[in-house]
Amino acid sequence: VFTDQLRTILGPGGYLEGDDISARYSADITGYSVGQPALVMRPRTAAEVSQLLKLCHGAGQQVVPQGGMTGLSRGGIPKDGELVLSLERMTDIEEIDTRNGTMTVQAGAILQTVQEHAEDNGFIFPLDLGARGSCTIGGNIATNAGGNRVLRYGMMRELTLGLEVVLADGTVMTGLNRVVKNNAGYDLKHLFIGSEGTLGIVTRAVLKLFPIPKSQCVAFCASDSFDSVIELLHFAKAKLGASLSAFEVMWQSYYDRVQAARPNLKLPLTGDYPYYVLIETSGGDEELDSRLLEGALEIALEDQLVADAVFTKSKAQVDAFWEVRDISMEVAATLQPYHGYDVSIPLSGMQSFVAALEGAVAGDWPDATLVMIGHLGDGNLHLCINLGAPPAQPPSQTIDEVVYTITGRHIGSISAEHGIGLLKRDYLRFSRTEAERSLMGTLKEVMDPQGILNPGRVVRG
Amino acid sequence: VFTDQLRTILGPGGYLEGDDISARYSADITGYSVGQPALVMRPRTAAEVSQLLKLCHGAGQQVVPQGGMTGLSRGGIPKDGELVLSLERMTDIEEIDTRNGTMTVQAGAILQTVQEHAEDNGFIFPLDLGARGSCTIGGNIATNAGGNRVLRYGMMRELTLGLEVVLADGTVMTGLNRVVKNNAGYDLKHLFIGSEGTLGIVTRAVLKLFPIPKSQCVAFCASDSFDSVIELLHFAKAKLGASLSAFEVMWQSYYDRVQAARPNLKLPLTGDYPYYVLIETSGGDEELDSRLLEGALEIALEDQLVADAVFTKSKAQVDAFWEVRDISMEVAATLQPYHGYDVSIPLSGMQSFVAALEGAVAGDWPDATLVMIGHLGDGNLHLCINLGAPPAQPPSQTIDEVVYTITGRHIGSISAEHGIGLLKRDYLRFSRTEAERSLMGTLKEVMDPQGILNPGRVVRG
Repeated sequence: VFTDQLRTILGPGGYLEGDDISARYSADITGYSVGQPALVMRPRTAAEVSQLLKLCHGAGQQVVPQGGMTGLSRGGIPKDGELVLSLERMTDIEEIDTRNGTMTVQAGAILQTVQEHAEDNGFIFPLDLGARGSCTIGGNIATNAGGNRVLRYGMMRELTLGLEVVLADGTVMTGLNRVVKNNAGYDLKHLFIGSEGTLGIVTRAVLKLFPIPKSQCVAFCASDSFDSVIELLHFAKAKLGASLSAFEVMWQSYYDRVQAARPNLKLPLTGDYPYYVLIETSGGDEELDSRLLEGALEIALEDQLVADAVFTKSKAQVDAFWEVRDISMEVAATLQPYHGYDVSIPLSGMQSFVAALEGAVAGDWPDATLVMIGHLGDGNLHLCINLGAPPAQPPSQTIDEVVYTITGRHIGSISAEHGIGLLKRDYLRFSRTEAERSLMGTLKEVMDPQGILNPGRVVRG
Repeated sequence: VFTDQLRTILGPGGYLEGDDISARYSADITGYSVGQPALVMRPRTAAEVSQLLKLCHGAGQQVVPQGGMTGLSRGGIPKDGELVLSLERMTDIEEIDTRNGTMTVQAGAILQTVQEHAEDNGFIFPLDLGARGSCTIGGNIATNAGGNRVLRYGMMRELTLGLEVVLADGTVMTGLNRVVKNNAGYDLKHLFIGSEGTLGIVTRAVLKLFPIPKSQCVAFCASDSFDSVIELLHFAKAKLGASLSAFEVMWQSYYDRVQAARPNLKLPLTGDYPYYVLIETSGGDEELDSRLLEGALEIALEDQLVADAVFTKSKAQVDAFWEVRDISMEVAATLQPYHGYDVSIPLSGMQSFVAALEGAVAGDWPDATLVMIGHLGDGNLHLCINLGAPPAQPPSQTIDEVVYTITGRHIGSISAEHGIGLLKRDYLRFSRTEAERSLMGTLKEVMDPQGILNPGRVVRG
């Protein structure tokens, strides 16, 4: 009878049941799943979401909200007994306000569609990540997505001006703010951004747009030491100002494997260096912007901040340089089976972090291989570890515990971009204090007293 | 006995009573006050703040937290029966991490001290406002301060990485995050930033630092129409990219009064134009940066986006151009007695907003004078209205109601920068929906169940 009520709200085509529920509603992109939903709800409007949640709230029915299912922390896969609430039919781009530079979209809109619509109107929406063709704006908001352009434009949090959210009890909270500065009371949107669907279901958002950059220049550099990489970053920030749009570091362990992953890829630099850095600028004046980066590079070479460097402003070569960085998933695949991590470490502690991690891993898994790249401009490291042959002595800690313990000791974050979901919930203590976790629990309890919204994800249910 | 316990925690010198409590603890900068505190508590540590709040929480004793007392919305002035908790003895700059580009300070540190300490170490802390010599970091956080450089660096919210907060019950919640990207659970700092001391007392903060800009170039322009001002803004954003650091618009009503306020000030442009715009860029390369703005200006003149313009990169002239904008308080003073407002309006509705406002004011107060300037790059307008002689017919609405009703109708914010405090609480409905206000109330209730933290400010107590 309860399910009948949900079906009635949704109408024909508004739900899936039984064999009609394909694996894409139960598994993440790695194919991992923990259960099978009995019903997939596919509402069309916030009003429908409201009616559904009101019923679920009353009945204590647990619900897992879903976007494009490209998350990496198991935040969107349902357990047995949970129903799926998919925003896949709420994909409208409702309005683009070109004078104000904002766009209002439904949460199920695909990121790439939003990007393209912005470009058709003379703007960019700058959030960009590999999953752009399937991830949704609602999912980007729920996980506070990052990606390639955070250094210049910020994360999803900085790109979102307003939200419409359906709360656990079905209340539709409309806060479609369109102005950059709004100090009229608590800024509630930040509660929902990055909370992975545990505090409310985002149904609409107002997004910030930016002018289309006219220039894109890239330098590919090699460095002899981590100290000079950090010096180079500070120099680049000072010299290039806000036009610095990427500062990506590849450790030699990564760079050496690029050709294993893509034998035909021509490397921008040959030689034998411990660090490689991709520096990108973007701006509004092709000639001056390229002179700025070229000039900076000359100084960096002279002052030995870089050991070698190549510069380009040709679109083809820019893409070729970026490819070395962008095929990181393929490079990781050469390490199968591997453990992947997405941590943030203060720059002042990063070298010590890497040394401690290498030491700990080598101690417990003598045969291990560790590969690292990072959005270093943001302090964000992506690690890939293949443990090699099982060690003679079983280690006292799992590799997850090793990585997160050392992350915590370096005042880092166990999740820079990917969120917590089910995967990292039990490690939250390494990045958040007891008082912080307790307040998270209090907020969860007061905003979702029946525990129906993505229960057990992020915070313990 | 209760007060004795507070005194014991604070020790000698840690509190003020009776006649020792000067007016600076009870009045705001306009001299306005609503009561007299019986005790001013001046703790030295978060541990002391914790002990004090634990007692007050137990006893239901209401507390008003105070920073530099430069707020404009009456958020820091005590009512009778409330005790003051001043952070004025917690002024330590605890650490500057030059590799990571962050600084950890106590909440009572003066903004200008923080700025200077950053500069001594080769950085800037970019938040800047007129009250820099007396306002505190804690106050900047509590009110999410804005100011002159928001377009380039964001508001206090974007400049704060981590917080230590003492909650209403005395719990010390330490969340001194130092990384830019941290998706490990809910981002709790945003609850406290901009909540004006109603949800917790900020005791420490980790701040983001930036390189010292090497160039500062300014163009002072005149425009014939609001349409061309908006076009100029879009053009400046596209052409100057992220180096655009200010886009300040002065309406003719303002510009014409500058010399009334400062007879000796030489105006950058003569002539008779409806709008004047100050455009500033800052970056890392003096020569290229000045060529960029000069080049942009040539195009703007050619394309008639501006009717007239002057350019400068000399420090003296940059300061002289800025002075025209910076003496806005003096210009306002020529309108005494005046009503001041700080609103945000989406750019697409700003012209309609101004027209509606001018119409409504002229209708009710035929003798009124309205003066406007704005951080237009942020959508933020500052309005000054002198109502003139009382009208024959008493208007049906107060001037506050007129301004805020029209702001609400244009999807604007009744407080862009200055916060809500006591002053604007009853107008919150014009910028926030009922569901939003209700959630604010719920958060206040759960985080401060005894209602001891700045009660009645922002949300109803």
